Amino acid sequence: MIQDKFRLHTPGPTPIPPRVQQAMNQPMIGHRDPDCSRLVRDLSLRMGLVFGTQEPVLLMTGSGTSALEAAAANTLSAGDEAVVVVTGAFGDRFAKILQAHQITLHRLDIPWGEACQPEQLRSFLQERPKAKAVFLTYCETSTGVLNPIPELSQVIHSHSDALVIVDGVSCIGAVPSRMDVWGVDILVTGSQKALMLPPGMAFTAVSPRAWEAIDKNPHPRFYLDLRNYKNSLEKDTTPYTPAVTLLRGLEAVLDMLEEEGWEKVIHRHKLMKEMTRAGTRALGLDLMTSDDVASPTVTSIWGSDKWSSEDLRKALRQLSVRVAGGQQHLKGKIFRIGHMGYCDPLDVLTVLSALELALKNIGVPVEAGAGIQAAEEVFHRVSHPDYRPA
Amino acid sequence: MIQDKFRLHTPGPTPIPPRVQQAMNQPMIGHRDPDCSRLVRDLSLRMGLVFGTQEPVLLMTGSGTSALEAAAANTLSAGDEAVVVVTGAFGDRFAKILQAHQITLHRLDIPWGEACQPEQLRSFLQERPKAKAVFLTYCETSTGVLNPIPELSQVIHSHSDALVIVDGVSCIGAVPSRMDVWGVDILVTGSQKALMLPPGMAFTAVSPRAWEAIDKNPHPRFYLDLRNYKNSLEKDTTPYTPAVTLLRGLEAVLDMLEEEGWEKVIHRHKLMKEMTRAGTRALGLDLMTSDDVASPTVTSIWGSDKWSSEDLRKALRQLSVRVAGGQQHLKGKIFRIGHMGYCDPLDVLTVLSALELALKNIGVPVEAGAGIQAAEEVFHRVSHPDYRPA
Repeated sequence: MIQDKFRLHTPGPTPIPPRVQQAMNQPMIGHRDPDCSRLVRDLSLRMGLVFGTQEPVLLMTGSGTSALEAAAANTLSAGDEAVVVVTGAFGDRFAKILQAHQITLHRLDIPWGEACQPEQLRSFLQERPKAKAVFLTYCETSTGVLNPIPELSQVIHSHSDALVIVDGVSCIGAVPSRMDVWGVDILVTGSQKALMLPPGMAFTAVSPRAWEAIDKNPHPRFYLDLRNYKNSLEKDTTPYTPAVTLLRGLEAVLDMLEEEGWEKVIHRHKLMKEMTRAGTRALGLDLMTSDDVASPTVTSIWGSDKWSSEDLRKALRQLSVRVAGGQQHLKGKIFRIGHMGYCDPLDVLTVLSALELALKNIGVPVEAGAGIQAAEEVFHRVSHPDYRPA
Repeated sequence: MIQDKFRLHTPGPTPIPPRVQQAMNQPMIGHRDPDCSRLVRDLSLRMGLVFGTQEPVLLMTGSGTSALEAAAANTLSAGDEAVVVVTGAFGDRFAKILQAHQITLHRLDIPWGEACQPEQLRSFLQERPKAKAVFLTYCETSTGVLNPIPELSQVIHSHSDALVIVDGVSCIGAVPSRMDVWGVDILVTGSQKALMLPPGMAFTAVSPRAWEAIDKNPHPRFYLDLRNYKNSLEKDTTPYTPAVTLLRGLEAVLDMLEEEGWEKVIHRHKLMKEMTRAGTRALGLDLMTSDDVASPTVTSIWGSDKWSSEDLRKALRQLSVRVAGGQQHLKGKIFRIGHMGYCDPLDVLTVLSALELALKNIGVPVEAGAGIQAAEEVFHRVSHPDYRPA
């Protein structure tokens, strides 16, 4: 294969658009420079549109996990009770974070590949009335499930005063987000997924109700102390040197997404999801998630008794396509195709073509073109002006 | 002035070399990709040469402050005693971090602009025998003082079992660092100073003795838990998505510095320091630090009763040169010229020329060319083959 040409379809990091790359490719500026202050001020407000909140979005330098921990360590202190809904590896990460901070943990474990249903959470919460916060995962990256955040949030608010804390890392920017309307108290995302930036920044928004808890909370923290970010933002700056390059990139990202139009961005991701699902099914593959809970950003597909998903990943890699494997107990059992951010329907067709070639290469019988045919049918159906999503 | 042309001379972020920019300007790769694993493994070892340690250097995604907190929160727990030597704003930051973690704090405050002398620390330590760690700042960015780390470390080891923890953020990569020989237990630096990268990564190395303390320490932490970075490094990876772009940039940085040769890198910074000091003195300006404790990376210069350092900074900015102001009580009283990383003697002459123009523009009488003359004399003297630094 020609060198350096590859298609990155992991569920983050995702490819960087040339326009964003160019924006990041400018001479460095100082972080206390007026140009940087303007960026910090503008971006924290513009990111509010992405989150669906009137609150400013805090700009943190770190992996997504840094903001997940910030959400926990700022609202709870040792001995407090919290509920974590675990639908996969990232719900499990929330649980590990809470354990590290000596929070008394109530885990609602949902089988991997399924979403948490509002009724499940309702009965679980009723038996844990002391929980001060409930931790949810919007898109569970490890399975490709999109949990029903509006409904889950409503259940929480109707039964308790617990804060609603949501990990939106692998979907915000590709799915609807109405943080204020849904009553989400803290929403977190990272730079390297649907937001089309390199890894290195995390974004956090906080409701007035959550600020009250944060302001009173004595739990030790410094770098991740959200109060410092809030106070600095009032002076159009960050408490510590921010990832200046990514700030510039984010400005270009928001320009691009706003020019495309948010409805179209969200529709594009739905379309790519449906094409991926139809195409892989037509190749005889089994999907891990059912249609009603599948995330528009990542699709998990089972290997089989006859062939290993790791062999398929290697065969795809030889064809220049990079997809992710399974995490924890799913290692070697599934592969995951990311289709978010700088990704369009033709990219999905390319992945499906490579999948046809790769399956044949590892000895799995496939009808050449079957996946493409199914995905193209979806494309035509969904692109039709009369199409209305379910 | 022509647009977009400016000279960045803050003490971090610093300019990015084109070769590094180019290395960062490649298509994104996945963080679990073999290419990324190779980077993580290689860079953690090569950074050991920069630190002067045989230990692998942990690669963290965050501002320098994240690693300063990691050094504290991993070695100490609430109620432990620690000594912090405060020679400026960043020693003060260490103190704030320790306070946030409820560490019993003994502050050795040194007047800003002076270095801590070994004898001062000796007597201070003798009265605080329970201190489990001593926090030092190598280059105090807020004043431009370089504290004598080898001597201070020796004093600590000869009087106690306290861990020696050093903030090397604004000098590592530009000054000698022999962490293992000096007995430094934890050394920390950031990406955006002498290492010529954008902000967004922090680097931490840990002695075997410090690992013992870290492994036993129950203090709550997750994202900054150094054990997670160490364990992941054994599998050539990082616990959370790293700043992939900066890893690629760091590879190019280390290539550049190794090709120049470490002795020459260190000599270049000494030369730039001496040129800056001679040039500004010849213009009648007062330096904040004495020659014996001045950092090779940043020079702090007093304003005067007759003119404000902020007015001078503005005049410099109009001429395209960006320097830093004073922090905390020095705001408006000093300005700071960074001369580290992608910076050479001609850049120093450019800054000095701009300084001559700017001083005249704000009404301060200067003899045109006097600063340049003095700096050029230093250049010839120090570049002479017979020159031996003091």
